[in-house]
Amino acid sequence: MPTKLAPPALALLHNFRVVLCQTSHPGNIGSAARAMKTMGLQHLYLVKPDRFPDAHATALSTGAADLLEQAIVTDTLAEALSGCAFAIGMSARKRGLSHELVNVRSAASAAISIAATQPVALVFGTEMSGLSNAELDHCQLLAMIQANPDYSSLNLAAAVQIMCYELRMAALQAEDLVDDNLTPNSQAEFATIDSLEGFYAHLEETLLHIGYLNPVAPKKLMERLRRIYARIRLEKEEVNLLRGILTLTVTPRKHDKY
Amino acid sequence: MPTKLAPPALALLHNFRVVLCQTSHPGNIGSAARAMKTMGLQHLYLVKPDRFPDAHATALSTGAADLLEQAIVTDTLAEALSGCAFAIGMSARKRGLSHELVNVRSAASAAISIAATQPVALVFGTEMSGLSNAELDHCQLLAMIQANPDYSSLNLAAAVQIMCYELRMAALQAEDLVDDNLTPNSQAEFATIDSLEGFYAHLEETLLHIGYLNPVAPKKLMERLRRIYARIRLEKEEVNLLRGILTLTVTPRKHDKY
Repeated sequence: MPTKLAPPALALLHNFRVVLCQTSHPGNIGSAARAMKTMGLQHLYLVKPDRFPDAHATALSTGAADLLEQAIVTDTLAEALSGCAFAIGMSARKRGLSHELVNVRSAASAAISIAATQPVALVFGTEMSGLSNAELDHCQLLAMIQANPDYSSLNLAAAVQIMCYELRMAALQAEDLVDDNLTPNSQAEFATIDSLEGFYAHLEETLLHIGYLNPVAPKKLMERLRRIYARIRLEKEEVNLLRGILTLTVTPRKHDKY
Repeated sequence: MPTKLAPPALALLHNFRVVLCQTSHPGNIGSAARAMKTMGLQHLYLVKPDRFPDAHATALSTGAADLLEQAIVTDTLAEALSGCAFAIGMSARKRGLSHELVNVRSAASAAISIAATQPVALVFGTEMSGLSNAELDHCQLLAMIQANPDYSSLNLAAAVQIMCYELRMAALQAEDLVDDNLTPNSQAEFATIDSLEGFYAHLEETLLHIGYLNPVAPKKLMERLRRIYARIRLEKEEVNLLRGILTLTVTPRKHDKY
């Protein structure tokens, strides 16, 4: 868990660069740009892309075309990493190397701490074979998505999406902005205890009236009904609605009046 | 945090269905199937897809074509939800409704607990406008990805990827299988303390020899060097390698010997 950071953690997302190495399909570059922007990242570096710029990349970036326009194309990974303090290589598998390998959630948490002072790179390999060993040697840490071992083939942009999502969550966490409950504040007023008791009394009376509740053998019926309604946290208006039903249960309205 | 569950939590991923409502682009259906399979989900339901089956869907599903073959197409959301105990609607924005809205991480954690006993549905709306209010009324909970408020437009398959990823992480967590450190167990033996002390003594001697360490004013140099090497957790072979360098620092090998 990152400690509280001096600069707003969400601003730290601008201190990241996504580096795509030798991407074959320009559409993946566009989708990766879109994925980055949805999570608040902006700096895209492309090491020897097969085709760029490309209309297919632009089409798939949708509202993130600005990231493509500002993307930096380099001949080598070393150039793309220039100025970075830390590079995290994305790996789809465990490798027999002495690199430290962590899951993307841990990597994101570590990366946000480092990004507080220095730029951090996220390095992605080709669609077919990932990062080469020579490329991995430029990275200080490997990060892996704990995917289905029977089918771990994430699309490149999907891997970018998850890594950037975890960075955003780590940044939000550092600012205590992860909202488990995002429910909009309701303008509605909750029913008071008095009004709830009024409802329960009305319900009991009605159940007696229709013969569902047997006063000689009540069998904890009211307790069980209270337990159901208590879970709902009824609003004031909702209690009125339910009592309306009870009233008409006892005295049906004659529809031919209308 | 879900409590330990009786059935292996990863098997619970088979107790989920992904329901895509009125998807316009068949490519998104294929990409969504791939995203699901990478995370271990398999049941795909399609409510009134514009075009399905479709070659573009199959092409983008790559190794997940089996999910498309087994996908169930329905006319209504109610049919797609039949047999489910719980439906989570994905929302890209806060809505002025009384639905409970949580972030996808919390939703995943809750969903894994429910899936221990009953099927759970994840419901995704159209690419353009998400879920309609009528569709939302079939859901018990809304889940939201806490995206960049300035650009929250995730691709449909990207949203499926993140939700399924969070489910997989929640399932792994329930089994204590989230591995923060995935570094392969090295076969290599770590250097013993004795061997490290031998190295430090050799290093000090060498630094004295080349005049870098001044015995009159050592300035905590050895302490600082120890602190550097301690962080590495040197392996036995690596200590030998470093001591080889020290030996040749003092007595260079004559290369013309070879």
